[in-house]
Amino acid sequence: MRFSKRISQMDTSDLRNVLALTARPDIISFAGGLPAPEAFPVEALRRAADRVLRTQGPAALQYAPSQGFAPLREKLAQRHRAQGIPCTADDILMVSGSQQGLDLAGKVFLEPGDVVLCENPTYLAALTAFRAYECRLLPVETDDDGMVLEDLEQKLSAHPEAKLMYVIPTFQNPTGKAWSLERRKGVLALAEQYGLPILEDNPYGDLRYEGEAVPTLKSMDTGGIVTYMGSFSKVLSPGLRLGWLIAPPALLEKYASAKECTDLQAGTLSQMVADAYLEDNDLDANIRRISALYKKRRDLMLSCLAEGLPAGASCTHPQGGLFLWVTLPEQIDTTALMPVMTARKVAYLPGVSFFAGRDVRCCLRMNYSNAAEDQIVRGVETMCRVFRDTLAKG
Amino acid sequence: MRFSKRISQMDTSDLRNVLALTARPDIISFAGGLPAPEAFPVEALRRAADRVLRTQGPAALQYAPSQGFAPLREKLAQRHRAQGIPCTADDILMVSGSQQGLDLAGKVFLEPGDVVLCENPTYLAALTAFRAYECRLLPVETDDDGMVLEDLEQKLSAHPEAKLMYVIPTFQNPTGKAWSLERRKGVLALAEQYGLPILEDNPYGDLRYEGEAVPTLKSMDTGGIVTYMGSFSKVLSPGLRLGWLIAPPALLEKYASAKECTDLQAGTLSQMVADAYLEDNDLDANIRRISALYKKRRDLMLSCLAEGLPAGASCTHPQGGLFLWVTLPEQIDTTALMPVMTARKVAYLPGVSFFAGRDVRCCLRMNYSNAAEDQIVRGVETMCRVFRDTLAKG
Repeated sequence: MRFSKRISQMDTSDLRNVLALTARPDIISFAGGLPAPEAFPVEALRRAADRVLRTQGPAALQYAPSQGFAPLREKLAQRHRAQGIPCTADDILMVSGSQQGLDLAGKVFLEPGDVVLCENPTYLAALTAFRAYECRLLPVETDDDGMVLEDLEQKLSAHPEAKLMYVIPTFQNPTGKAWSLERRKGVLALAEQYGLPILEDNPYGDLRYEGEAVPTLKSMDTGGIVTYMGSFSKVLSPGLRLGWLIAPPALLEKYASAKECTDLQAGTLSQMVADAYLEDNDLDANIRRISALYKKRRDLMLSCLAEGLPAGASCTHPQGGLFLWVTLPEQIDTTALMPVMTARKVAYLPGVSFFAGRDVRCCLRMNYSNAAEDQIVRGVETMCRVFRDTLAKG
Repeated sequence: MRFSKRISQMDTSDLRNVLALTARPDIISFAGGLPAPEAFPVEALRRAADRVLRTQGPAALQYAPSQGFAPLREKLAQRHRAQGIPCTADDILMVSGSQQGLDLAGKVFLEPGDVVLCENPTYLAALTAFRAYECRLLPVETDDDGMVLEDLEQKLSAHPEAKLMYVIPTFQNPTGKAWSLERRKGVLALAEQYGLPILEDNPYGDLRYEGEAVPTLKSMDTGGIVTYMGSFSKVLSPGLRLGWLIAPPALLEKYASAKECTDLQAGTLSQMVADAYLEDNDLDANIRRISALYKKRRDLMLSCLAEGLPAGASCTHPQGGLFLWVTLPEQIDTTALMPVMTARKVAYLPGVSFFAGRDVRCCLRMNYSNAAEDQIVRGVETMCRVFRDTLAKG
């Protein structure tokens, strides 16, 4: 059989093998991006499902409009307005998780060879989603405050034909960093100047453990260039597969057509269960409960790393989200060390796949939301011992 | 903003406008492809959801493997083996409804300009899904027994480079026709001879109201060239958004990577609810119950059409599925008549969009599963009167 060219760019078997390995119950895994099992409001969602199926059963099991269940879009619009994004239900398209938002953005915007700007490093599954459209990924230098404006300006003037910019300004995946307000304003201004649409991915923004909230790009998007992606995956449940896009009308229409051609609509039952949950419960109370749990795990992981990491290594101190990022001395190849780690029953996600150029091998991503406290202590200790031993051996 | 070329091929706003219009409660609509609301086993699915969330809540709300929930794939494999398709759970990939199967096939196989063979007419949303990959759709002549082998052979010898063939051999959308065994064998043999992969879409096959079952292409696929698409949408619930692909291992691996890049996985809760339903209930009993209902509606619609259709018009007599197909005298343009129909509070789906060449305007698709008996009587009568009046006016 002759396959498409794009499919060779989409081979995810390496990553799937890592994640399958780390799903083994004997392995302490910091590799995935899973919420804690105790983070889900199981009983409230059970009651929501029960009420929906008792009172609106046939509607919940039927096809529904491709834009999404209207009452749910109303509630999301209200929530976003309260967070500073002026929008109505009409401005929202429900999608099957944020990952689908990435694919739809590729469908709507990208031709082979098109330039897509992104942070360096950035979310690896976004890189794969865009690679499926055979684009050229151009990473922009990123420091603790976000994209470096000088580098962005240089890249934009060298590539004024760039088609799209993908960013995760708040508690970024993989680094956990949040952009400063100044950088947000600067990036928006440059993108407007060059007429470059921005895709702002914000699945973690509600999970803040310290510091002051910083406005989203979308809340400052007076030029209508930003597509905002929200998600229930980290604050309610990833198993419902529900995310949403907020975009200006002419652009949302394109996304809606792409969504319909791709899989008709997001799940009706999922949407109605989420809607019933929001009607009968306080999502923010759930977010506060999860945040307290994750803050404790973040603090524990940071203190274990401070104790165990070898000299010359450093890690980020995320103010929220699910991930932190470790940078080791350059002689350490975190991918090459994976077999040693899994033999010692511990796993992280090697950093190389998060770089568009696949050119940095001494970093790794750690998830602190999914592991219990004792696993964090033992797992970080084991990992750090391997790093120290590797450096000692030269 | 500069959009991709493909997105202009994916404009579904016309169709969405028709379907939105026909969702008006004052309109009798035969336009959609919806199951009857009373077809859903609401109480059994409510109990399934309740059991899953009571006993496996955190797992049902968490991320799950991209290939799909293993126990559900086991049950589907067993079901398909009983229907003559030799397969195991490993040969199955769960997708977010069959529509996603079409998109994934496009992703895996198609380059711009690639030739895709299909029936003429064929499922309109398949045409749109493939057009998103900028392919060239080549319709093959189709009669009451299926694809015409002579025309297929001619098209294949003229286009040996063809990349994919898309077919719905059983209770086709839009015509409701089923291919004869002889044609199935003939098409398979030709496709094997030319090394052409086949995508066999079979969402309606279980809904047979009369006649003997005919084997699926996949059950005779000794060469491993067929991807089979199954779906819960017509036999259990479309709101769960669950379909599945069955394909040889090397091909399934490609689909799995494409699925993962596109939206990670099908909904976990949906899959576990479907699995619990299959564990505690007899899906075939539900299918028999639905079939009895739909047979009655089909019979009623056929008799109303026999009475009302003008001379020179004809309709198919489907042995199963959800649709029948009306061919009117050539001077009738079913698209142009839509405003008249909706003014008289009745709607069908104009036929032109089902032809890859958009070159036949005197046909229409009617759905008989979703309308109540009295609506069928009144709706068909109204429609037929408009057709007769239009012809009388010349």
